[in-house]
Amino acid sequence: MSSEPTGLIASSGIELLTMGTPNGVKASVLLEELKAAYGTEYTFQAINIMKNTQKEPWYTALCPNGRIPTIVDHNRGGFAVFEGIAILLYLARHYDPQHKFGFPVDSDEYSEVEQWIGWQHGGLGPMQGQANHFVRFAKTKPPYAVQRYVGETERLYGILDARLSSRKYVVGDRYSIADMSLVGWVNMSTLAGIDLAAQFPNVQAWLDRLLERPAVRKGLAVPNESTMSNAAIAKKIAEGDEDTIKADQAARKLIADAKAEFGYKYASP
Amino acid sequence: MSSEPTGLIASSGIELLTMGTPNGVKASVLLEELKAAYGTEYTFQAINIMKNTQKEPWYTALCPNGRIPTIVDHNRGGFAVFEGIAILLYLARHYDPQHKFGFPVDSDEYSEVEQWIGWQHGGLGPMQGQANHFVRFAKTKPPYAVQRYVGETERLYGILDARLSSRKYVVGDRYSIADMSLVGWVNMSTLAGIDLAAQFPNVQAWLDRLLERPAVRKGLAVPNESTMSNAAIAKKIAEGDEDTIKADQAARKLIADAKAEFGYKYASP
Repeated sequence: MSSEPTGLIASSGIELLTMGTPNGVKASVLLEELKAAYGTEYTFQAINIMKNTQKEPWYTALCPNGRIPTIVDHNRGGFAVFEGIAILLYLARHYDPQHKFGFPVDSDEYSEVEQWIGWQHGGLGPMQGQANHFVRFAKTKPPYAVQRYVGETERLYGILDARLSSRKYVVGDRYSIADMSLVGWVNMSTLAGIDLAAQFPNVQAWLDRLLERPAVRKGLAVPNESTMSNAAIAKKIAEGDEDTIKADQAARKLIADAKAEFGYKYASP
Repeated sequence: MSSEPTGLIASSGIELLTMGTPNGVKASVLLEELKAAYGTEYTFQAINIMKNTQKEPWYTALCPNGRIPTIVDHNRGGFAVFEGIAILLYLARHYDPQHKFGFPVDSDEYSEVEQWIGWQHGGLGPMQGQANHFVRFAKTKPPYAVQRYVGETERLYGILDARLSSRKYVVGDRYSIADMSLVGWVNMSTLAGIDLAAQFPNVQAWLDRLLERPAVRKGLAVPNESTMSNAAIAKKIAEGDEDTIKADQAARKLIADAKAEFGYKYASP
């Protein structure tokens, strides 16, 4: 599809409006899991945030904040849900009656899932997003901001690594939406200057475990396979792609210099 | 209390471990409302994050992320809940049987509450927090970071102002935990360079409405009355307090210069 969406296209099932960002893929991973487990019908449309499609009136009528992802539930009168945490919790409550990917709403695990998705939604997501911005995308890259956000991202990965040292999944003894909320971010940690296998081996092992699931791989490729995943960047570097190697070296130097300038020492958890 | 907490002190009811930050007061406002409405028992301990009490092993056993607030539910076996969004949703489900401050879990409004608390938890909170940091607290204040975070905070307040142009409360037709999640941040918007009454009159009117509630005022003063609320800063300026006036003028100039340097124009929603 080359032209941008101009409105909703489905009339039944769940319609997902998304882009292949770490926040977008949370929703598509769960929708792929629900499709595989229950046959839940879903449609997606790719929103190009560079073209500001998410600021069009038909979109902001669904998501006043003008961000992706948003889902529209055509089975429930076109009810719209925005914010990743709210999408995961809504879909789990309404479309996972057997609690394959979540827990009953009155269980302690339900709250634990909320806590860890909250931790991702208010901590790891926003902070890794800022690290990406200052390490990779900003035109001006003040060293103070670089070390602040890379440092906080490392602290948060340290918390997750400790959590995963004694368990295979983030909550309880099984895979759940708490893991799904994180997978898109962890799968792109290279971008923020995180060397996952070296610094956070428990998180790397967890990511490998998740990537064995077909629905995770499918969900991460909605609407397109990412060119910025850890695997995609590692592959390009292994192939000798000069731009990628140069960008990687520049990011490493920027981070090392910023940490040195501000006397940063990793201390987490 | 001058000495720092070294462990839990209550054996029944809810125990809140907190500091008077915008995130901390979410929990205390709801606990004050529950106390007023149902007589729900709660105790709090003040955590001084400057002394890193939240990094002590007894604390991180309850909240592995080492941040405030955390609640411990002594009525339910000492179950601990961290992350503001998870605390609000947990307390509403377990301690608000008449849905005075929330909505039934299978209602559409329940999801809308999740969406707007999610919006605060992953958007307005983290971004206003960064604006506070770069406008007020950071030793180095790169203009690019100043305009990035003040600009994003203004965009988010614009979304909220538009939302409140046609309704008195954030979700449904009544006050709920969605409002409570925001009140601590909005009550300190001056710090981030927001001129609430001038820029976002609907948000100012909403804040005034909330501040009429005794439980809101009590909750905002746990563990102490803030010296950084909009009202406290306005009062000091009116009284001619030189330090406050100087800091206010410096913040205004910093923000105006940063916006001019990067050609920032407000465009929200």
